[in-house]
Amino acid sequence: MRPPLIDDLRALTPARAGGDLLAGSITAVLLVPQALAYALLAGLPPEMGLYASILPPVVYAFLGSSRTLAVGPVAVAAAMVASALYGWAGDDRELYIQGAILLAALSGVLLLAMAALRLGWLTHFISHPVLSGFVTGAAIFIVGTQITALIGAPGSGRHDFLGEIRHLVAALPQANGATAAFGLVSLLLLALARSPLQRLLTRAGMAAGAAAMVSRLVPLVVVIVATLVSALIGAEAMGVRTVGGISADLPIPDLGMFRSSGWWQLLPSALLIALVGYVESVSVARSLALRRREAIDANQELIGLGGANIAAALSGAMPTAGGFSRSMVNFDAGARSQLAALVTAGWVLLITLFFGGLLAPLPYAVLAAIIVVAVWQLIDLGSLAHTWRFDRGDGVAQALTLGGVLALGIEGGLVLGVAFALAVFLYRTSRPHIAVVGRVPGTEHFRNIHRHVVDTWPERLIVRIDESLYFASSPRVYAELQALVTGHDSALADVVLVLSGVNAIDASGLDMLAAFHDELQRLGIRLHLAEIKGPVQDHLERSDLLASIGAERLYLSTQAAVEALASDSRAG
Amino acid sequence: MRPPLIDDLRALTPARAGGDLLAGSITAVLLVPQALAYALLAGLPPEMGLYASILPPVVYAFLGSSRTLAVGPVAVAAAMVASALYGWAGDDRELYIQGAILLAALSGVLLLAMAALRLGWLTHFISHPVLSGFVTGAAIFIVGTQITALIGAPGSGRHDFLGEIRHLVAALPQANGATAAFGLVSLLLLALARSPLQRLLTRAGMAAGAAAMVSRLVPLVVVIVATLVSALIGAEAMGVRTVGGISADLPIPDLGMFRSSGWWQLLPSALLIALVGYVESVSVARSLALRRREAIDANQELIGLGGANIAAALSGAMPTAGGFSRSMVNFDAGARSQLAALVTAGWVLLITLFFGGLLAPLPYAVLAAIIVVAVWQLIDLGSLAHTWRFDRGDGVAQALTLGGVLALGIEGGLVLGVAFALAVFLYRTSRPHIAVVGRVPGTEHFRNIHRHVVDTWPERLIVRIDESLYFASSPRVYAELQALVTGHDSALADVVLVLSGVNAIDASGLDMLAAFHDELQRLGIRLHLAEIKGPVQDHLERSDLLASIGAERLYLSTQAAVEALASDSRAG
Repeated sequence: MRPPLIDDLRALTPARAGGDLLAGSITAVLLVPQALAYALLAGLPPEMGLYASILPPVVYAFLGSSRTLAVGPVAVAAAMVASALYGWAGDDRELYIQGAILLAALSGVLLLAMAALRLGWLTHFISHPVLSGFVTGAAIFIVGTQITALIGAPGSGRHDFLGEIRHLVAALPQANGATAAFGLVSLLLLALARSPLQRLLTRAGMAAGAAAMVSRLVPLVVVIVATLVSALIGAEAMGVRTVGGISADLPIPDLGMFRSSGWWQLLPSALLIALVGYVESVSVARSLALRRREAIDANQELIGLGGANIAAALSGAMPTAGGFSRSMVNFDAGARSQLAALVTAGWVLLITLFFGGLLAPLPYAVLAAIIVVAVWQLIDLGSLAHTWRFDRGDGVAQALTLGGVLALGIEGGLVLGVAFALAVFLYRTSRPHIAVVGRVPGTEHFRNIHRHVVDTWPERLIVRIDESLYFASSPRVYAELQALVTGHDSALADVVLVLSGVNAIDASGLDMLAAFHDELQRLGIRLHLAEIKGPVQDHLERSDLLASIGAERLYLSTQAAVEALASDSRAG
Repeated sequence: MRPPLIDDLRALTPARAGGDLLAGSITAVLLVPQALAYALLAGLPPEMGLYASILPPVVYAFLGSSRTLAVGPVAVAAAMVASALYGWAGDDRELYIQGAILLAALSGVLLLAMAALRLGWLTHFISHPVLSGFVTGAAIFIVGTQITALIGAPGSGRHDFLGEIRHLVAALPQANGATAAFGLVSLLLLALARSPLQRLLTRAGMAAGAAAMVSRLVPLVVVIVATLVSALIGAEAMGVRTVGGISADLPIPDLGMFRSSGWWQLLPSALLIALVGYVESVSVARSLALRRREAIDANQELIGLGGANIAAALSGAMPTAGGFSRSMVNFDAGARSQLAALVTAGWVLLITLFFGGLLAPLPYAVLAAIIVVAVWQLIDLGSLAHTWRFDRGDGVAQALTLGGVLALGIEGGLVLGVAFALAVFLYRTSRPHIAVVGRVPGTEHFRNIHRHVVDTWPERLIVRIDESLYFASSPRVYAELQALVTGHDSALADVVLVLSGVNAIDASGLDMLAAFHDELQRLGIRLHLAEIKGPVQDHLERSDLLASIGAERLYLSTQAAVEALASDSRAG
């Protein structure tokens, strides 16, 4: 799919341009505080969050297939950056920053490589429950690790949720009063700015749209007011940790880092960041596109996000992805094309150049409050109960991923969840459902004898196999077939296997069928196959199984098999 | 299942007892040289192979479900023991021996635990092609690493096939002439003793049974003659490495080793030894049992082999399993019950006690020749071509396992093969076959429109999904369904999904179906589901999907769906 921006710009009308201009400006208002906060969350200087909000979204705008996805720094990826670099960089601050840029470069290269090799399907192996458990776990993890920053207590210095929580108990009494005031007041205002403020304003007669707009201004207002108050009261002298100046220089690409030895060590982390960022971005982009009947091209998204991350690396920024809340705001504010993203980027560029230095007195605790409020909405424990009700395996996978993130860390939890979900699938497919079927009277349909009232015959055993015959399922299918043959009426003369549920047969499955056929032959029982699917039949033609069973014992339908057997027994 | 030995002993007749006595004695003749050789292969003193042939088969005789499986030391497990202990024990000879006993103990405990937890299905994940590639690879590996012993050249001292082959080129000129004479003459005699000797004897008028018996005597004769010759010419003084005395003491269980720290380190190796030994034993036992219409109980085999390995550990022996060639000989010689195994064990006990010391001059090269001839018959490259013809994925898995054993080692190759086979299965299930179907004229059956001449309708799209809807398959199914809907006639009013091939639906699959339903609703198209399997329907009842689609749009058969739609359109 061709990225839509150029066509959109050609077809631009004043009304549409106005919509994008407004939406882009509103998104910028939300983005600037988030950019500073997520850089803090990643353990990086604040300007790296701002840089991530300038060039990367511009590159995405030209390459991506979504008209409304807002690309930039995101909370989960920021936490993953911190996870990857804690330990790797040790106390070396410069190495840490270089590592973040390397992660962006690697993520970008991996996404582009996946686009070139058409490997987008790799992300299909992250199941919905695992992703949901992961996001909720990561959000709780992030909240847990922001509490010390919020109240000005000394951090544990470790990137570990359980350790941080244990540390908190001891650290609470060492909180800094002034910092806690900044943090908790900001937290309260930001929390109130969500639905309570909107409800209040609409109840006071304001239009819903205007109320939402005011509510979205609150984070920026909190940042500005906190910066002013901090400067006026001299908060830094009171022990409040502040941002301490944002470099107003635009970053210059440092190509030297590409000779770093970190490439290989950071590759697994970069892969996880790329996969999670991609999956989240595509799902946000898709749900927004659906609302306007637009389309998202999964492969073009790999290119768009890959390009954005390469741009992040080249402009000295942290890794980027499509943000959930920011894209929603952009969409709701009336963005129709990626022109809005260009407007947002322009605003962030201006703010970085001309106002960055003014943010020096901003307390970190305010940014921690922004992080906590932003990720709080990602916590979805109801989904866990919902998944559990539908499917126990998926429920355990979701809980295990969530718990794994908290107990083992962000990366470990994700890997554990994906591995567990795969294990559940493999376990289930290795224990297939097998049904003895009979004919529903008066029809040509055959159903499970234990679920339906059906006709059966003592001399015939008709068995439906509800799984592909592959190496892990074949031994069990074989054992069950043997047991059915042994347990059947001694008049048994014909076994019909109904293969409507057999979507594939591999070499082990073929061996199993051949062994079963041999065994039936020794017992003087004939084997018949019904409802073999086209691709399975093609595959079996490559072996001599069908020839040894005999073409006359293969039937398009179970009914045809039963009719043939009936005329056989009349003839005999 | 109850182990059959006690009942067999109760029902014993003189004729049957005679058969078992003879078969047990013949098997002993084959077993003694093999026991010495496989101990050498495992890098252990020869008596550890003999010990493995006494108590373990006795324990198996009372616990196992097979009447003819001959349990004792086997080549592949011996090579796996060497793989596990090389590196782990370093140059510490005593630790190496203790490690072998620990491996036997751990394998036994793991097999018993698998029996208790009913985890025998774990072995189903080793596919036939992977097992075949593994056995062939291990056999080639073993042959390659025995060449230096065969010709008396210095060994590479590493347990690594490619390294050994590279080393050979340099080591060949350093071969010891006398050793090479022992090794190569033995090799020639043993190779000739197989089919060529039997053909010769039968052509000379000997009965086929007697000829086979004579051929089976050859290894023992080679060992006795080589021992005599070696003693007479003073081979040891000529630089020939000899067995150098076998301890005639019966082993006394050393319970001290169970305090060793090796438990955890050797656990993964022990698991692989246990799994491979079990899979091989059960497949041999099953094929022999089938010939006499006897049954094998997979769980009872876990208990039998687990008990045998515990017995091996307690009697200071190496790990054991059911041997392929030895069981065949036992069966062919007329064994009817495990009484034969008791007879074999009795013979080995007598030989160990009274003749072990006499074997001191036996050259190692003769044992190497026995190993090479024994494992040579396990090499099956034809199977690789056969698998490749039937299934490319299985073919690659088999080749990769074989190559992996040679390049990465015995354990690495097995793990690689199992992982690759799983990846192939997951990849394939994530890209399911989807068929648009139409009705075969004059029938109630619906088949692929691209394979059969069928009736179709412009206002209806009938799609059969040939795979379970799980997290990895759902995104692709969704994309294909969307493409089919978009590409269909604009008169499209109804989509029927035929779920005969959908054996399971997980939470991600449910989300996908719900999203597809939403999308169709927005387009004013109705969704219908046909041929939902019973267990899948039960599962879906736990969600609100079926209710939101409407019970009247679920059909037992595709025909029923088409009839309902036809009467709908007549009514409308």
